[in-house]
Amino acid sequence: MEFSSKLIEQAVDAFAQLPGVGKKTALRYVLHVIKQDKEQSNNLSSIIARLKTDLKFCSNCHNISEQEVCEICSNAARDQHTVCVVQDYRDIMAIENTGLYKGKYHVLGGLISPLEGISPSNLNIETLVSKISAGSISEIILALNATMEGETTSFYIFRKIAPYQVKLSAIARGIAVGDELEYADEVTLGRSIINRIPFDSLLKK
Amino acid sequence: MEFSSKLIEQAVDAFAQLPGVGKKTALRYVLHVIKQDKEQSNNLSSIIARLKTDLKFCSNCHNISEQEVCEICSNAARDQHTVCVVQDYRDIMAIENTGLYKGKYHVLGGLISPLEGISPSNLNIETLVSKISAGSISEIILALNATMEGETTSFYIFRKIAPYQVKLSAIARGIAVGDELEYADEVTLGRSIINRIPFDSLLKK
Repeated sequence: MEFSSKLIEQAVDAFAQLPGVGKKTALRYVLHVIKQDKEQSNNLSSIIARLKTDLKFCSNCHNISEQEVCEICSNAARDQHTVCVVQDYRDIMAIENTGLYKGKYHVLGGLISPLEGISPSNLNIETLVSKISAGSISEIILALNATMEGETTSFYIFRKIAPYQVKLSAIARGIAVGDELEYADEVTLGRSIINRIPFDSLLKK
Repeated sequence: MEFSSKLIEQAVDAFAQLPGVGKKTALRYVLHVIKQDKEQSNNLSSIIARLKTDLKFCSNCHNISEQEVCEICSNAARDQHTVCVVQDYRDIMAIENTGLYKGKYHVLGGLISPLEGISPSNLNIETLVSKISAGSISEIILALNATMEGETTSFYIFRKIAPYQVKLSAIARGIAVGDELEYADEVTLGRSIINRIPFDSLLKK
């Protein structure tokens, strides 16, 4: 694409760095910002700057936080002995929205993916292991995507923490609530039969 | 969606103002900015601010420009008597990329759309009419989308400039180069037969 203005070109390049945004979409965003009220575009501009200055990663669980230690880690009312391992901040949001988990989290910051060049050393796995070796954790719950990358990462963590005395579980795979059996894929359906659960546990919630 | 951080919530709201961006996509953008190098996010932030301060709309054709009068309008080598009417900056880019048009432009800034609350008074139509009434223009080419909104706008402009002595044309509708006839819709195919062109004009380019 050829732009008549150098500034527009630079702005398109900057927006095109966002995930899933190509040059055409970036140009759409740029034209929208040009049309916006000055107040709105200044707000977007200043908030982007503040994201880098005001936010940190929690020193304990690597969650995004405005403090040195995040709200969940500093909340004494939560179960200190259970740690749920997730990929990123969005997964914490999703699990918190269920209202059914009261333990702590550990954010990996990604999943092992040789295709994208993400190896275990790029993830927060070492800090998880040292937390476990410190000894105060009784259960680790792996809550990673049910994808190739998620399963690989789960298996890697399983091997890493095998030497330690800690209960390791993974969130259940099965038929989603509201789904019809006949449309479920074979792997999911097969697993849901093998990992069948006592019926009365379905009645709890 | 509930966010643990007020800042993240504000940032998601700011990004969600961009066209076609919902809260989930906005959150993806926000998390990406948090992970980015400080330099990159500062660049995005400052360039958004500059878009509003450094860019203007050309006083003649309403195109986006870094000067008071845009490069195309101030280019004396271009045909001063032909004006191509387009919806926005992207259409100018597309037409300029063909390299086949050497006249000037007039940017409407949108299309008439009662559903979106855009009426003729929201568009740069009056300035087009006064340009024509000034008398130096010999041809107006309507290059608007082949949609309901585009056709409505074309027809509105046609009626507005009917009193003036100016040639009015519209870009050709027909089978796109590379398309197969059997997959073309009936309206397009029908029009392409009615508006058939001398064969030798196909040989020129």
